[in-house]
Amino acid sequence: MSILVVGSIAFDNIATPAGRKDGVLGGSATYFSLSASYFTQVRVVAVVGEDFTAEHENVLKKRGVDTDGIEHAKGRTFRWGGQYLENFNEAKTEFTELNVFEKFQPRIPAAYRDSDLLFLGNIHPALQSAVRCELSGVKLTGGDTMNFWIQGANAELRQTLKQVNVMLINDGEAKLLAAERSLPRAARKVLSMGPQALVIKHGEYGATIFFREGAFGVGRHPFRAPALPIEEVVDPTGAGDSFAGGFMGYIASQGEINREVVKRALFYGGVMGSFAVERFGTEPLQSLTREDIDGRFGIFRELTHLE
Amino acid sequence: MSILVVGSIAFDNIATPAGRKDGVLGGSATYFSLSASYFTQVRVVAVVGEDFTAEHENVLKKRGVDTDGIEHAKGRTFRWGGQYLENFNEAKTEFTELNVFEKFQPRIPAAYRDSDLLFLGNIHPALQSAVRCELSGVKLTGGDTMNFWIQGANAELRQTLKQVNVMLINDGEAKLLAAERSLPRAARKVLSMGPQALVIKHGEYGATIFFREGAFGVGRHPFRAPALPIEEVVDPTGAGDSFAGGFMGYIASQGEINREVVKRALFYGGVMGSFAVERFGTEPLQSLTREDIDGRFGIFRELTHLE
Repeated sequence: MSILVVGSIAFDNIATPAGRKDGVLGGSATYFSLSASYFTQVRVVAVVGEDFTAEHENVLKKRGVDTDGIEHAKGRTFRWGGQYLENFNEAKTEFTELNVFEKFQPRIPAAYRDSDLLFLGNIHPALQSAVRCELSGVKLTGGDTMNFWIQGANAELRQTLKQVNVMLINDGEAKLLAAERSLPRAARKVLSMGPQALVIKHGEYGATIFFREGAFGVGRHPFRAPALPIEEVVDPTGAGDSFAGGFMGYIASQGEINREVVKRALFYGGVMGSFAVERFGTEPLQSLTREDIDGRFGIFRELTHLE
Repeated sequence: MSILVVGSIAFDNIATPAGRKDGVLGGSATYFSLSASYFTQVRVVAVVGEDFTAEHENVLKKRGVDTDGIEHAKGRTFRWGGQYLENFNEAKTEFTELNVFEKFQPRIPAAYRDSDLLFLGNIHPALQSAVRCELSGVKLTGGDTMNFWIQGANAELRQTLKQVNVMLINDGEAKLLAAERSLPRAARKVLSMGPQALVIKHGEYGATIFFREGAFGVGRHPFRAPALPIEEVVDPTGAGDSFAGGFMGYIASQGEINREVVKRALFYGGVMGSFAVERFGTEPLQSLTREDIDGRFGIFRELTHLE
């Protein structure tokens, strides 16, 4: 099954305890597409400026990603600069230049309308909502958001939440969205806002998926996938989108959704997130093989498997 | 197999976002013994003051814990007051009255010298070391410590590390002890200081055990056990000692140490830690049944089990 992703393409200036790198190709749509490309056909809707060259586009094309939905606008591509401190938990934003992203109005090419799965990357919830309305035929919609929208566009986000099947956010976002400090209670509250499943990402500790009663016929018990203890985290940028790409990509590759598929998808999400942080930018996601991915899947499984 | 634990018995004043309670029976030896008592015979070496009554001692005795090694000294029992903030991660100490604990010199009753396992609770590393020397016949020694000793008694702690088989500490302690921000590297460095295995506790995210090459014949790959997403954490005091009690207690109950036993022990550690935080003090650990424990073990297993 094919996946359509709507999100950002950006150039990032990234400083981490491991070093710094400027003008790194990034953005939610970029990380998501590269990650999902190892599992299924991916189509991208995003906007770029004149500084986005054929060479940049080739990074996606080489992985078989359909880039026809990338709009080329006058001006510069979205740019972000940030710094991660010792614990890598959160980036301190140094600057944000929205540039062409400021007036982004996602346009869905006609050829994309038969997409089976949809991923709404972290953009304004009103845009997420509009895209979801247009793609009325999709079988499964995943979504992401951030504190900025939870606080600044809450009403619009509540609308989006009614339109996604699976929401993927981190601990802090879940607690903020639900105004709850207990994670299971926060999860239940977010599920009551609309989605059938909620993936809460715990960074280096993995992720937990919570289900609404009866969702996907998968039972109501949560499921947790670990993350590998990574020897050296170089750059956590894009880890969440890479996670989402592995999660949604694996589901797309399976043709049906059941508890076992969703569980494995959560493991694949963790696997792709763990690759993403090993070097700066999308570099680690450009030249993996399915053997690399399944090898790490095996290690993750071994990490928690009781006889 | 029997376990001897050396540690503190205390009265705690605890404030958490869920409420506050004063004069709660606590201390590392108390939490550890109650937790381990569901798996095996436990013996305690600790010191208490005149305010420690027969009623307090009965909390341990009712669980079959051998309290002959508790020394009754003149004065008041060790008292600690602390407050947990919203994230429950760390307690802000409000006061510490060492009282009789200040001059604690562990004395091992003759009848305890045949103990099979030894747990060195979080006391001064020089005392841990002395106890370990006296108990030369034990099959397995576990140990705990804290930032206070890592920074204030580092040389003595290095000596203790050479005498324990399994060290159980949390992420922050491991990183501080190794002066490393990468967890796997920190783990390797701590293992190079002596222990054959290192359990790193991740709070609500579970725990990972790392092995020294060749240790216990269990292979060198780490293993991770999850922690249940707890509906409402009421009081995290003693979670680490309860974890250690479940971990060491299960190993003691098995008669031999192999990879599968150690993996299950890590799950049982998480199970006992998760019970401990559900109410104030040791209350949740006083009246469990083996069915409660194995029921939660099953849920933990289900939480991460891939077919």
